[in-house]
Amino acid sequence: MVITNITFISRFESMKKPIILVTNDDGITAPGIRHLAKLAQSFGDVYVVAPDKPQSGMGHAVTINTTLFCEEVKIDDGCIKEWSCSGTPADCVKIGINELLPQKPDLVLSGINHGANSAINVLYSGTMSAAIEAGIEGIPSIGFSLLDFSYGADFKSSLGYLSKIISAVLENGMPPEVVLNVNIPKGDGVKGIKICRQAKSNWKESFVKRESPMGKPYYWLTGEFLNLDTGPNTDIEALEEGYISVVPTGFDLTHHQHLGTLKGWGL
Amino acid sequence: MVITNITFISRFESMKKPIILVTNDDGITAPGIRHLAKLAQSFGDVYVVAPDKPQSGMGHAVTINTTLFCEEVKIDDGCIKEWSCSGTPADCVKIGINELLPQKPDLVLSGINHGANSAINVLYSGTMSAAIEAGIEGIPSIGFSLLDFSYGADFKSSLGYLSKIISAVLENGMPPEVVLNVNIPKGDGVKGIKICRQAKSNWKESFVKRESPMGKPYYWLTGEFLNLDTGPNTDIEALEEGYISVVPTGFDLTHHQHLGTLKGWGL
Repeated sequence: MVITNITFISRFESMKKPIILVTNDDGITAPGIRHLAKLAQSFGDVYVVAPDKPQSGMGHAVTINTTLFCEEVKIDDGCIKEWSCSGTPADCVKIGINELLPQKPDLVLSGINHGANSAINVLYSGTMSAAIEAGIEGIPSIGFSLLDFSYGADFKSSLGYLSKIISAVLENGMPPEVVLNVNIPKGDGVKGIKICRQAKSNWKESFVKRESPMGKPYYWLTGEFLNLDTGPNTDIEALEEGYISVVPTGFDLTHHQHLGTLKGWGL
Repeated sequence: MVITNITFISRFESMKKPIILVTNDDGITAPGIRHLAKLAQSFGDVYVVAPDKPQSGMGHAVTINTTLFCEEVKIDDGCIKEWSCSGTPADCVKIGINELLPQKPDLVLSGINHGANSAINVLYSGTMSAAIEAGIEGIPSIGFSLLDFSYGADFKSSLGYLSKIISAVLENGMPPEVVLNVNIPKGDGVKGIKICRQAKSNWKESFVKRESPMGKPYYWLTGEFLNLDTGPNTDIEALEEGYISVVPTGFDLTHHQHLGTLKGWGL
């Protein structure tokens, strides 16, 4: 099934044209954000505020003790304005919303990331932290990631599905305190979309130890992703089966189930 | 009520001496981590792996595209070993567990942070990301923060309470997929400990725009914390009432309540 943008745009003809902020963590020139900015133009007026360099693995880092530079740039046609920013993905959302855009955006789109942000990776992801930052500000937002690290990854095959998800958010509005974590399997054989939960997982990590030419030891992080979840309806399961995973993602980290456990400790 | 460490140590005499990893985000020489490392020595064999420079606001950033340096240092007496690390707080936990310590620690303690990590600040906090990183690895962990940014903050008054919390974790074990976010009010009038939930909140932010001597515009982030939560039992409420807040904090970001909402979208 290939869904064209056109199918969905028509539903929004009666709506005010939304203001859309597009960002990412791979940097403003990455192919992923170029495809997303182009797609976003089908839905509204697009502003891009994105890092001037790759910021993968930056998590929810914010720049609080130093300055930020934001340079207006023109990379592709069709966006209202674009800014290349020296900060993190979360910084880009903060400065986009509060300083650069003419008004608060109606929607924030982050990505399309080169590489997965499913399962525990949501915590390390600059892409998802940008989306979450928008969610904290009460703005509907979606983080998109493709399970393909390569520069020349095929972002096009899934754009119809991405349109469908963006349309659904614009039509239904986002539930309060929810952002969407959307991961897309590699290849052109996507079977559809599944709403799912974050799989329990971690990384089995090790460090390669080497010595600099000056004799100083240094380390490189390496690791292997471990899916620890054998239950149903996880994002990892959906992706392995060839579906796009959509996880409603929140930012209240309270483990409500264990409030009672801790109260039983008699502290 | 002042609780001495002695009261609690005695309960653990029959236990194997735990291996404790201590880290923070303010840097290895900050007074907060010095107090925490000292306190931890009452409970077990202490190893410190902490950033070589302040890393506040680094969230769950990890170093994936460059090298890490870890230098063994001796700052205070009493620790088995200490390493000053070029990475983020989450990096310190990863490399501590997987490379530097002789075995997987039984407990990870992060802090004592200079400044609050209650409410939405948990997401931006390097202190809490270090604790969460340990939790992902299945290691009981606690992040401690004092609501006082100053270098000369009074960390001593609350050490008895911190002992009580550490003791409770060692006695009871940590519930699965839970880490503790502990925030401590400023001053010596702490009334006790409350188990509570993360308050809904955000930052009302603005950017100060200035011009460099070379005429290039730059920005400084400034902001005001907004508690948006009028419900009972929040960490902000506990702290305002003079209690230490303890929030059981998880890392499954799935907003389970809205899985059904999204399924209703017919994607």
